[in-house]
This record gives sequence, C-alpha cells and structure tokens, in this order.
Amino acid sequence: MAGQPVTELQLRQELDRRFEGYLQELLEFLRIPSVSAGDERRGDVKRAAEWVARRLAAAGLEQVEVLPTGGHPVVFAQRLRGRRPVVLWYGHFDTQPPDPEQAWEHPPFEPHVREGRVYARGASDDKGNMLAPILAMELWLALAGDLPVDVKCLFEGQEEIGSPQLPELVARERQRLACDLVVSADGGQLSEQIPSLTVASRGLCALEVEVRGPASDLHSGLHGGAVANPIHALCQLIASLHGPDGRVRVAGFYDRVRPLSGQERALLAEVPFDEEAYRRQVGAVQLFGEEGYTTLERLGARPTVEVNGIQGGFQGEGIKTVLPSRARAKLTSRLVADQEPEEILELLRRHLEQHAPPGVQVQVRPLGGKARPYLIPHDHWGNRVAARVLEQLFGRRPVFTRTGGTVPVYELFLRHLGAYTVTFGFGLPDENIHAPNEFFRLASFRRAILGHALLLGALADQGG
Amino acid sequence: MAGQPVTELQLRQELDRRFEGYLQELLEFLRIPSVSAGDERRGDVKRAAEWVARRLAAAGLEQVEVLPTGGHPVVFAQRLRGRRPVVLWYGHFDTQPPDPEQAWEHPPFEPHVREGRVYARGASDDKGNMLAPILAMELWLALAGDLPVDVKCLFEGQEEIGSPQLPELVARERQRLACDLVVSADGGQLSEQIPSLTVASRGLCALEVEVRGPASDLHSGLHGGAVANPIHALCQLIASLHGPDGRVRVAGFYDRVRPLSGQERALLAEVPFDEEAYRRQVGAVQLFGEEGYTTLERLGARPTVEVNGIQGGFQGEGIKTVLPSRARAKLTSRLVADQEPEEILELLRRHLEQHAPPGVQVQVRPLGGKARPYLIPHDHWGNRVAARVLEQLFGRRPVFTRTGGTVPVYELFLRHLGAYTVTFGFGLPDENIHAPNEFFRLASFRRAILGHALLLGALADQGG
Repeated sequence: MAGQPVTELQLRQELDRRFEGYLQELLEFLRIPSVSAGDERRGDVKRAAEWVARRLAAAGLEQVEVLPTGGHPVVFAQRLRGRRPVVLWYGHFDTQPPDPEQAWEHPPFEPHVREGRVYARGASDDKGNMLAPILAMELWLALAGDLPVDVKCLFEGQEEIGSPQLPELVARERQRLACDLVVSADGGQLSEQIPSLTVASRGLCALEVEVRGPASDLHSGLHGGAVANPIHALCQLIASLHGPDGRVRVAGFYDRVRPLSGQERALLAEVPFDEEAYRRQVGAVQLFGEEGYTTLERLGARPTVEVNGIQGGFQGEGIKTVLPSRARAKLTSRLVADQEPEEILELLRRHLEQHAPPGVQVQVRPLGGKARPYLIPHDHWGNRVAARVLEQLFGRRPVFTRTGGTVPVYELFLRHLGAYTVTFGFGLPDENIHAPNEFFRLASFRRAILGHALLLGALADQGG
Repeated sequence: MAGQPVTELQLRQELDRRFEGYLQELLEFLRIPSVSAGDERRGDVKRAAEWVARRLAAAGLEQVEVLPTGGHPVVFAQRLRGRRPVVLWYGHFDTQPPDPEQAWEHPPFEPHVREGRVYARGASDDKGNMLAPILAMELWLALAGDLPVDVKCLFEGQEEIGSPQLPELVARERQRLACDLVVSADGGQLSEQIPSLTVASRGLCALEVEVRGPASDLHSGLHGGAVANPIHALCQLIASLHGPDGRVRVAGFYDRVRPLSGQERALLAEVPFDEEAYRRQVGAVQLFGEEGYTTLERLGARPTVEVNGIQGGFQGEGIKTVLPSRARAKLTSRLVADQEPEEILELLRRHLEQHAPPGVQVQVRPLGGKARPYLIPHDHWGNRVAARVLEQLFGRRPVFTRTGGTVPVYELFLRHLGAYTVTFGFGLPDENIHAPNEFFRLASFRRAILGHALLLGALADQGG
C-alpha cells in the first residue's frame, strides 16, 4: 500500500466536512435530464458525460476522456501508479425517462430534499451511486495524496437502453480497460440493515414464433373443423414447453445448468425473504415455479422460458367468427451459468419446429438482445474484500443474492477483460427506480461514499 | 288441389312472355341500396320493404303488411283458402354493404346486364332469389286464377346483420306465421349442373376466457420462474380442448351429437368434392380435422371448438421482457344436432375452470350470438317434393349438402312454428356474394321463378 495510511475515522471526518458540498454537487448532477431513451435528450446525456469527466478530473483522476461510441458516450479515467490490484469502477449517468411525469410530486429533474431523502429521476439509479466512488477517490487523494490501488473508471450513458454500443467499445478498448477486478456502483442493498452482494444475474435470448395456417383468414363456420387453426397449434406448442412440474421440457435445455451446491442453497436460504409478502406484492393467487426449488432459487439459479406476448385472430369487442391465417408469440429465455444464448435459441427452435402440429407451418425467428448469464463465486477475493467492508458499514455480514434479471455488462467484462465484477451499490428496494418519485437516502449517499473509500483501502490490503 | 290444373309447359310459356318485364322489375328492385349494416341506409331498407309489399299485392297476395320490428322492417303477406299444406316463403331484401366500392366494375346499385348476368349488390343474395317466388305466385294466379296451396310470405330486411329482431317477431307472431313448411328462397345450388338441398347448418355459442396472473405486468427477469405466466396458463387451457386426434376433449361435449348414419354418410359422399382443390383454395399445407371423418363430414356433421382470437402481453416490434398480468381468448363452438348452446357453454366453462393451472385465476364470460344447430331429415316430405322439382329443372336428382355455417332462422322457425325449412335458392358459388361485382345469372333467375312455380304445384300434390 502506498501513500499515507488513512483510517476509517479520518475518512468519516473528512466526509462529514465535505458532505454538504457533495450533496449540492449531486443535486447539480441530477438537474441534467440525461434520459437515454429516445433522441430528445441526446444533448443532455452528452452534458452529463462532460459533467462526469470534469468531476473525475477535479477529483484527481487522470487521462479523463469522453469516448464516442456512435451512440451515447462513455467516460473513461484512470490513475495508474503501478500498484496492484488494478480496479475498474463502473456505473452510469443516463436515466430512465420520467414518464408518467404528472405522477411526480416535484418535477423529476428539479431535485427536492425532504426528510433525509433526495427526490429526482436518477437519484438512486444511478447518479447517487455513481458519484460516490469519484468522491471516495477524492477523499483519499485529499487525505493521503494518493490512491491505495490503481484505478480505472468507466461510466456509461446508455445503460437504461441496454448499452447497445458498449460490447463493441469494451472489446475494442480491452487494453485500456484491462484490470484485475470491476466494482459496479450500480445496484443496491437488501435493506438498510442487511447488506448484500449480488453474485449472479441471468442471461437472455429471445425469439418470435409464427404459426401459419390457411393463406388468409377463413370463416370459422364454413371451414372450422377441416382446417387447422394456427392459434390452437401455437397454444399446443407453448403448452409443450413446460411440464406440470414447472420444468422446461425442451430437450437439452438444462444440460449446461450448474446445479446448486449445498453451500449455494444454504447461502440463498440465508437471504431474508417473506414468500407470502412477495406473493402479495406481485398479486398472484399463489406462487408457481419449478418443483424442488425455493422461490429465490427459481429466480436466481434456474433458467426459464417465458412467453412475453401472444396474438392471433380477432382482438376487438364481441365476436368475429374467424379462423385466422396466423398467430404468433414472443418468447424469452432467462439463462443461468453455463447456458449459452445461441445454443438455447437453437434448442428452442428445434423443439418448436419438431412439435409443429399437423396442418400448419412453424417459423422461428431469433430476436436481438442476447446476453450470457453471469456468476461470480461467492468466495471470490473481490467478494471477500467487499463483504468485509459491508460488515464494517452495516455491522453484519452480507448475504449473497442473485438477481433474476439480466446485467449483460458483467459478463461482458468477464469475457473481454477476464475480470469479475463485484456489485457495490447502495440503492434500496423502495426507492421507486424506473418509477415516479424516485429518491435516494442521504444516509445511503454518505454510506456509499464511505463504503467506496473503505473498499479502496481494503482492496490495497488484499493486494489482488 | 284447387283452381285450374296448370302444366309445366303453360308455366314456361307464360314465364317466357313475361320474362323481360320481370327482369326490368328485378333491376328496379336492385336499384334500391338497401344496406342493413349501419344507419346510413335505414330509409332505403324501408323503401325496399315497401317495394316488396307493393309487388306482393300486385301479384295477388293478401293482407300485405310491413311489420315494424324496432329495427329494419319485415314484410308479411298471405293468401289462405283453407288448403293444405300451408307454406311460408322466406327470403330477405336487405343487402351486404358494397365495400370496397372502388373494386366494382359498375356502381353496385346501378344494375348492369352483360352476357346473361345481372351485376349488382344483392343480385344473387338475395333479391334475385327472393323475387322469384312472388313472380311464381303471380304466374299461377294469371294461369289458374288461384294458388294450389295456402301461402304465407315473410321477407325480412335484417338478414345481413344477423336478424337481431327476428326471434322476437317470430315468437310474437307465431299465430300469423303458423305453417306446415317453410321454403327458404335464400341460398344456392352446388353448380349449374348439380342441384342440391341443404339439410343442416351448425349452431353457435361463444365465450371469452380471461386468465389472470399477477396484479400488474411484471418484469420477466425479476419475476420469471416464480410467478405463473397467464399466457402459458391460457395456452395450456386451449391445448387441453383438443386431442391430437382432432377431437374436442371437453367432458360431455359429444353426448348429444347425433351420430352419422350409414345412409347419411353415403349421401354426403355423393356430394362432388375435390379435397385437393379445397386444400389449395384455403391455402393450408394439409387439411386437418377430427379423425375418422371426411372433410365434408367434419364441416357439416361434427361440432367444433375454435379459438377466434387470442391476445396477451407485448404485441409490438422487438422484445419487451414482460410477464403479463392477463391473457385472453375468444372461443366459438359450432354445434350440430342435438347440441344445445347453453349446455355447451356450461361444459366449456366447467372445463376451462377445472383445468385452470396453478397460480392463475380463470374467468369465463359467455358472449352473445347463440344459435341452435338445424337439421332437416333428408327424406322429410318437404325435401322429397323439392327434390322432385329440382330433378325436373336440372335433369338429375339433387345431392344433400350440409353447411358448416350458422343459419339461425331455420331453427327459429322449427322452434316457434314447428315447421321445417326446405332450402330452395338458386345462387351459384361463383357469384361474388358479400364481395365486389356480385352477379346473378339470368338463367338462374328464370330457373328460380319456374322452380318456385313448379314447387307450388308439387306441394299441392303432396297435400302436406
């Protein structure tokens, strides 16, 4: 470890002195309506990138650069002194759209502080979280004149639209981005009391299946019973995808799925989770999923095939006695390690074609949006360091969670940089991200800054 | 039989003398744009009713009356002399809309005679056919001074919109409409060479099924695998309705279905039908239906359950990873004798509710449009008489066909008047009914008038 040794007390005191100023900076950051969806706010996303670049430079980062991507930009910075490990911080400065805007109590891009919370679009996801490591680095540089590890930063402006240009950028810039570990400042903790580290996210592949029957819509009286109905055929196909036990019945689908070890099941069982509260939250009459697995296992460690949309025939009010010409459905599959999107697409295509009922033609078309699953060993050194810091912050050890959603960027870093990503965000589940009245707790903002500062030191102790 | 005996030769000669005048009257009738759909042509439908009433009176019918229905009117007339049988003629003077009007070679309500055909909306369906029995009665009254049987007429102005007020009218006027037989002047023959009598039409009932899962749309990544997907559940329900053998798997569904006798199958087998031409016509890769039945049996003598429309979740382009809150489908069942629409609706409701997969709620809502199936014994005396007349006209015996469609009015007459309906129309399959450039052959118009005239005499010989 280089520079002056810095204690937790020093960091806390320095943060206390600067906190009001940091909050004002967060509010300034939040005033930039950097909505990445659509074209309207393109200039504001760019403005947010420039704001981030300036702030990185002001904090003491070097070689700060706004990288063009062909879409919304990405900000890079680094401070390298030949130390180990080299750690890449990741986050994003774009936001979800504020719609429906009339549901906000205060305008979404006019941040409003009340009762220890700052309300604004992007407050939690991800500007508050993303700003924290920059400020943590500034604290270190102020107190010790240096950073305890070599640092790189990659903050992007297109996360909320699926980071369309990021894969190409990461592949192209793999030299510049090379690192031993990624720390993601995008994400959250289980609750104010219970810290957590996310160790897995699911991959994704998508397809559309179209069933074609007669050449045009027919009268269901004059032809019904003699000509196969593509809606029936499509429903039979979809019904064939699952067994009554909730398992996917596509041949080979589970072949590459890593079975949950006893330890992994024990770790998931430690995550506080109220099944009945979850059932009430989603509003289902009962929960349903693959037999032999708990809800958290189903969500975090088991793959799915899900129909996201179906349509065929008459959609209006009343009846229209049509035997439709075609029917179609959109399917996505959420993947877990070590399933491959391309391979699963092929298995699904084969299943759907082979199960085509008589009298119809089945056409399968893969859709974009492929992503590999991500899984970091819970005892990876990065997780061990992060867990110690979270224990310092929360007074208890973190639980290891898995998200059912898809975070393509982690797998991207693993594939191109060979580096695992540790999730180190401080959002909380009630903060209305992607919804009206998004907010971030000032306590979380403070905890995030201190957390990243402690992590910098702890990573240096680790040595990589 | 009363009045002067009249021979076929006399009828033919009298028709020849009058035919040019009758054609001019048909053209006048066709110039009234009596479109029953929508409100625009309400006055024209009334004008057509008045035209029909005047023509009935001019022909020598008595107690001619335009009956109000609350919707489009109905024209009634009779000529009773205490003879048997009492025969009620049925037909309709309303037409389909002419859309798309620009596809017509001549304006749809400016009839155009060319190469032995009269082109106009309603020429075949049903004005040309409906006018024929009135003119046939006139021929008899001119030649014999009387009609050989007691006659009633019921011509309606709302057939093309499903005769919404007719059931109530027939029920209310059952005394006035009382008869031994109904002759429907709406319908057609198999070809110019092959006469046919339609002995069956299928009934109908309809329902909507909605499957409800979570209270609102969920993210399919964050929740997929733990919450039942209503599209999956709906598809399972729909798949459960049929076996791979094409049979409906709803308990009790076939209980009241009259099995086809050997003779009925033989009669259907006599109907000229080219399976391969039919397959090409509908444009399916192969025909598919209930095992053990021919295509004509499937269409005419076997009931169906058909999904007419399905929708759920995301319908747009690309992907949206939604686990939808609900999905729904519209189903119709085509019924054959002696299935009851209400009972089948109840069986379907029970099946759908009992097969509800775990985690969702199933709601079944019956839709309007119930109709009973209709079946007249092929050897009913009315059919025997009509068959003899058709043999006179075509030089060969008719085949007995069944339509897969629904003609609620025949069952209505059977239920309220206790009288079967004999189909005696002279439309041909290529006449573009319900489409642009509808036409009627002058030869068919002449054959129709002569046919109804011969039928009047033949029914008198029968005596009821």
